[in-house]
Amino acid sequence: MELKAIFQSVEQDLARVESQIKAVTEVDFPGLAELLRHVLLGGKAIRPALTFLSARFYNYDLDRLLPMATSVELLHTATLVHDDAIDNSAVRRGRPTVNSLWGEARAVLLGDYLFARAGEFAAMTGDLRVVRLFAQTLQIISSGELKQTFDAFNLEQTRQRYLERIASKTAALFSMSTESGAVLSRAPEESVQALKEYGTNLGIAFQVVDDVLDFTSTEKELGKPVGSDLAQGTLTLPAMLLLEQYPEDNPVKELFTNRDMAEAARQARIKEAIGMVSESSIVEECYRVASDYCDQARRKLELLPASPVRKTLVEIADFVVSRRS
Amino acid sequence: MELKAIFQSVEQDLARVESQIKAVTEVDFPGLAELLRHVLLGGKAIRPALTFLSARFYNYDLDRLLPMATSVELLHTATLVHDDAIDNSAVRRGRPTVNSLWGEARAVLLGDYLFARAGEFAAMTGDLRVVRLFAQTLQIISSGELKQTFDAFNLEQTRQRYLERIASKTAALFSMSTESGAVLSRAPEESVQALKEYGTNLGIAFQVVDDVLDFTSTEKELGKPVGSDLAQGTLTLPAMLLLEQYPEDNPVKELFTNRDMAEAARQARIKEAIGMVSESSIVEECYRVASDYCDQARRKLELLPASPVRKTLVEIADFVVSRRS
Repeated sequence: MELKAIFQSVEQDLARVESQIKAVTEVDFPGLAELLRHVLLGGKAIRPALTFLSARFYNYDLDRLLPMATSVELLHTATLVHDDAIDNSAVRRGRPTVNSLWGEARAVLLGDYLFARAGEFAAMTGDLRVVRLFAQTLQIISSGELKQTFDAFNLEQTRQRYLERIASKTAALFSMSTESGAVLSRAPEESVQALKEYGTNLGIAFQVVDDVLDFTSTEKELGKPVGSDLAQGTLTLPAMLLLEQYPEDNPVKELFTNRDMAEAARQARIKEAIGMVSESSIVEECYRVASDYCDQARRKLELLPASPVRKTLVEIADFVVSRRS
Repeated sequence: MELKAIFQSVEQDLARVESQIKAVTEVDFPGLAELLRHVLLGGKAIRPALTFLSARFYNYDLDRLLPMATSVELLHTATLVHDDAIDNSAVRRGRPTVNSLWGEARAVLLGDYLFARAGEFAAMTGDLRVVRLFAQTLQIISSGELKQTFDAFNLEQTRQRYLERIASKTAALFSMSTESGAVLSRAPEESVQALKEYGTNLGIAFQVVDDVLDFTSTEKELGKPVGSDLAQGTLTLPAMLLLEQYPEDNPVKELFTNRDMAEAARQARIKEAIGMVSESSIVEECYRVASDYCDQARRKLELLPASPVRKTLVEIADFVVSRRS
């Protein structure tokens, strides 16, 4: 099923988020406006959709949900802008990154500005609990990213460590999206927790698939070069499994231990690793891991009233593990 | 008068801020804890002191003021960490910067983490108005810093432009400090505005003096190299006045137009500019500008009840323009 079809029930409200975000770009400082337009176009809007959908079980109060959904999307964008600056990435969503076009300093400051805008939208909900959730989520994301810098080019990582890292860097924002929707709809606490955990599990599954796609997809589909994780020294699940299968003579091992390798040789190793993963059962195994998390996500929903919106959340879980780009 | 003596009346509460900040460094992630300890030591605590003092006119509620004062100091530190990363600065407060010790990526992520912690403390006040103020202040600061990147190495800047820039990058945080204290003490709106404007004017004066000290102080006193602004291509008031006095054959003009100059030649030009400023009436003129803003700041206080705390705020204004380091 296509994402657009799944989101049909919140289509109108997602369009409202788009308008809010467009308004964010309309600032009286042309240099900033250009940067904002550059990063705030596109995006799948999965996270704001999760906020709206998670609020549908109880009191759907658009006046509070709209700023929150906007906040979620702006926070997501801010983290991407900083990620790209940190990783020196050149391309995102098929377009040059802010850092590649305007330099790292502006990318850092643009990200800071977006964090602040996102925080302001969170405050516009009038609900201090979601403001705190917002602040705590940014702490989890940034400390998760920091962990990643400490783990870079380290081959001795457990699967547990990998899962903790993606829980911080990706799943925290998914669970903030669902939890905030639940909180703002005045859901009973156990429903809030169920939707929060749905978000966490969905986010982990999403990132596992993302990490597989970094091996199996194409630059055109990804909107950025394949093999970026290996190039950054980020050990993801497919690379871990490849190391387990081929403990000796392994291109990942070479890449991570021989850091002085010439660029052409590095590219060749990355290509080799991609080929090995793609032709092995590793892809299947990773999708199985992702599916397990999606099953968990689905199970969390059982606590909620059966309804069309619950069905939609199940469809999102199905989509996450079936997507190939 | 020494700052320590001026702050005597809020000394105990500043010690409480210090404890809160110490607790911030105690995280269960050794890499992050080390970074936090590195940046969260030292600092003059002017901003948290302003928050406490601004609250002394009405209902002094420590439970709400303490998180806010902590938030103010954390936000300040976060912006310094990002500034240093952006400017590639090597030294701050007499110690190596995070970016110089651990790289730019970690500096960016540490700053993000501190923004989030600061935001969480702002939310702990339970007051949405100060949370919004916090978010708006970060927008003003980051867009002010962005403006600075667009103005870098541009000789055609008006004094107005300079004042706008320092109002954003420095005075906004000063006025957030005073305004939040006033708001949290449930001050009447006109007192809130008076204290806010006191903070703005004080902040502008503070930055003008800072910009002079970048010419007239020593690396030891500053805790960072002198002439940093010129090296970054930031045109401050002393440099502007030097350009006005010597429109031809001017080291600042050379630095800003001939960007390919060898490092030794650049350093010589910076030294020359420092010498010219120090020996001219420019220093005096800059202090006069700063004094004018401090007079403005003092005048804003006239609206508030005459009291020892008002006297302390006046002393802070006196201190700001008299400091030589």
